Amino acid sequence: MARVLTPRAEDFPRWYQDLIAKAELADNGPVRGTMVIRPTAYAIWERMQADMDARIKVTGAENAYFPLFIPESYLKREAQHVEGFSPELAVVTHGGGKPLAEPIVVRPTSETVIGEFMAKWVDSYRDLPLLLNQWANVVRWELRPRLFLRTSEFLWQEGHTAHATEADAKDYTLRIHHEVYERHMRELLAIPVVVGRKTDRERFAGATSTYTLEAMMGDGKALQMGTSHELGQNFAKAFDITYSSSTGSREHAWTTSWGTSTRMVGGLIMCHGDDNGLRIPPLLAPTQVLVTVVKETDGSVTSAARTVYEDLLAVGVRAKLDDRVDTPFGRRAVDAELKGIPLRVEVGPRDLANGQVVLVRRTDGSKTPLALAELVGAATAALEQDQKALYDSALEFRESRTADVSTLDDALAAAATGWARLPWSAVGVEGEARANAEAVTVRCL
Amino acid sequence: MARVLTPRAEDFPRWYQDLIAKAELADNGPVRGTMVIRPTAYAIWERMQADMDARIKVTGAENAYFPLFIPESYLKREAQHVEGFSPELAVVTHGGGKPLAEPIVVRPTSETVIGEFMAKWVDSYRDLPLLLNQWANVVRWELRPRLFLRTSEFLWQEGHTAHATEADAKDYTLRIHHEVYERHMRELLAIPVVVGRKTDRERFAGATSTYTLEAMMGDGKALQMGTSHELGQNFAKAFDITYSSSTGSREHAWTTSWGTSTRMVGGLIMCHGDDNGLRIPPLLAPTQVLVTVVKETDGSVTSAARTVYEDLLAVGVRAKLDDRVDTPFGRRAVDAELKGIPLRVEVGPRDLANGQVVLVRRTDGSKTPLALAELVGAATAALEQDQKALYDSALEFRESRTADVSTLDDALAAAATGWARLPWSAVGVEGEARANAEAVTVRCL
Ligand SMILES: [Zn+2]
Ligand SMILES: [Zn+2]
Repeated sequence: MARVLTPRAEDFPRWYQDLIAKAELADNGPVRGTMVIRPTAYAIWERMQADMDARIKVTGAENAYFPLFIPESYLKREAQHVEGFSPELAVVTHGGGKPLAEPIVVRPTSETVIGEFMAKWVDSYRDLPLLLNQWANVVRWELRPRLFLRTSEFLWQEGHTAHATEADAKDYTLRIHHEVYERHMRELLAIPVVVGRKTDRERFAGATSTYTLEAMMGDGKALQMGTSHELGQNFAKAFDITYSSSTGSREHAWTTSWGTSTRMVGGLIMCHGDDNGLRIPPLLAPTQVLVTVVKETDGSVTSAARTVYEDLLAVGVRAKLDDRVDTPFGRRAVDAELKGIPLRVEVGPRDLANGQVVLVRRTDGSKTPLALAELVGAATAALEQDQKALYDSALEFRESRTADVSTLDDALAAAATGWARLPWSAVGVEGEARANAEAVTVRCL
Repeated sequence: MARVLTPRAEDFPRWYQDLIAKAELADNGPVRGTMVIRPTAYAIWERMQADMDARIKVTGAENAYFPLFIPESYLKREAQHVEGFSPELAVVTHGGGKPLAEPIVVRPTSETVIGEFMAKWVDSYRDLPLLLNQWANVVRWELRPRLFLRTSEFLWQEGHTAHATEADAKDYTLRIHHEVYERHMRELLAIPVVVGRKTDRERFAGATSTYTLEAMMGDGKALQMGTSHELGQNFAKAFDITYSSSTGSREHAWTTSWGTSTRMVGGLIMCHGDDNGLRIPPLLAPTQVLVTVVKETDGSVTSAARTVYEDLLAVGVRAKLDDRVDTPFGRRAVDAELKGIPLRVEVGPRDLANGQVVLVRRTDGSKTPLALAELVGAATAALEQDQKALYDSALEFRESRTADVSTLDDALAAAATGWARLPWSAVGVEGEARANAEAVTVRCL
């Protein structure tokens, strides 16, 4: 088969770009840094959203929607924070055909507006905890865009909660971090994440603790898949989020915030993709099994393929029928590989004459001839096994690229090809500064 | 009970505004014309979205996501169209801390970008039909904003499709209009819509046919709940969307577009709301039954209420338990009424002593004492009846406010309190102009 993608070992960033184009996942938008998410990738994002959203709701949070536009003055309130965003802002200066009296910022996050409204909505301890989440687009001007990983506009969820006590805020942050984010990534995305705290240097401005989930990509580098923050009373003080306690005193609330974004799609590609394309974990895959008519003779092949397809649907498998026999079979097979569909069932006239079809697994590339009667059972078993296989192989890869070391020098050497694990006491604040100077970051405590 | 809302008959727009504030549905955002959709209303919108999205997918359309930002030059391409939007645009002139070389427009619709990409993605007749849908926020500068009905930013879905033939484009438009929009509105929202075509005067710029769904609000006025357009080859010619036919000739595609928005939430409020608040049709309601602990004595009331709540969940009813006994019962009851929760079950110590609870129906305000064992059956029956009852009463109201007339003069008189139905031959293009001059529109053919 002709080489479709640049091999990962040759040029990883190029492989990533090739894959996104050839698998029809996304395109660059007409404004630099923006992205068109094509149906193949959007369906993956929708399933991520649905799973994450259900888990968020279990924790008691409710979804709301805050405006895209924020008065520029709002971003001056929380000064420490804004300095981090200022060069990243897109500013609207004209509306309704006229210059605006006050410029408007396109939200880089809804934090400031949500803070403003939390202050209005919280009055008594009875109003706490206030648990809000939002799914929305945000804009942060990006000079070196990369599809899904760094785009000027991206889609995300941002959660913001207010609590009566520090302990409650901490418990909730950890619950989101472990029960929502970690489990979503491990169980649905099949990505083994390392979960921990950020150093003071890497912590989110204004947070008292920042928790992170770090995943190893196919090039041995780390990608931050999500973060959760305890904001102490800093945020509540900046926005005047106060409540009257049961004893009548006026107290500042304790707040948290937490977010994940379309960057997870980039992480999925770079964690599970191989030289033939994407590999989507079966639980996540919008299409789990593609039933392909290899070629048609008298109509009987398509009819047999349709029966297989319907049998799969009947047991709850997300199957799709590919009967586009006017497109060459080879091209359709390569396309399904590129797009990472977990299983293909090839239905062709020769095999059918023997009562057989071929089951092709994307995870390991194996092709197994099967009697028609065995197909559904074999497919459902393969889906379950391959979900685990993808997780296990990502974990094995990570371990093979993680060196246990005891000195900073050894850690910096190991970081050239992967990760290093060592005691924080061997690094310290000075060691972290030295590592940063060599473009190595301390990701997770 | 004290009057909570301005009565509809006294001042309908004021009632609408009161209801939105008191039921905690939405707030004005800090930038004029923008809106904060609070959890109570956002949960309604999410359920509208889920139902509509599933219906759209059944027609074969796939979701995608196109960028928020559009180069200003894009909007000059389809000149006829742009003239309609120009004063409505929000324009970004600064990004990354610097003035931009070319101004960027915040999308008033994604039509132009989608046209651009359709032209890239469509090459052969095999690529057709191309059926795309997008859920997104859009911005159209609004000088006289009204929450949900006219806001500068709103949430919507916009569908755009390309077909090989005019007949296919027409069939698909009508399928979306009837099977998706009309059924969504009738079956889920319980709103009896009048479905038909727009006059040439009211037709969307660039469309060859515009189909509309019109609903009568509680003040006798019409609200357009959604539109679908056949665009002929106009749009394909503007964007160069061509395909090679099976005989090898190069042809322009036939395109359609169709959209519905958060305006439907406004329509829902104005169609079903009464002087006590919102009434949400049971199938749509995020919470169908609120099980309320009237007051607690020794813990036994809450425990009985919890059993009722769990019994309802067990049969698939979306129930919620209200055990906030430190908030006065009356206030909680008014709140549930305002928010339009279809059923309340009042669990109080006195009724419980007789083995009873009280079922309160939002639709007609009736209160029925029931033996505990009868509750679940009675509640599920009431949910089913009240879905129908809301539809029937909206239909009855509409009929009572619609006059069958034969002259334009009689129609204009009828329009003062409701709708008029008359032959188009009695109106005509000149009659329509005269009606418009008196602020009466011809809504639907
Ligand atoms: Zn902040
Ligand atoms: Zn147009």
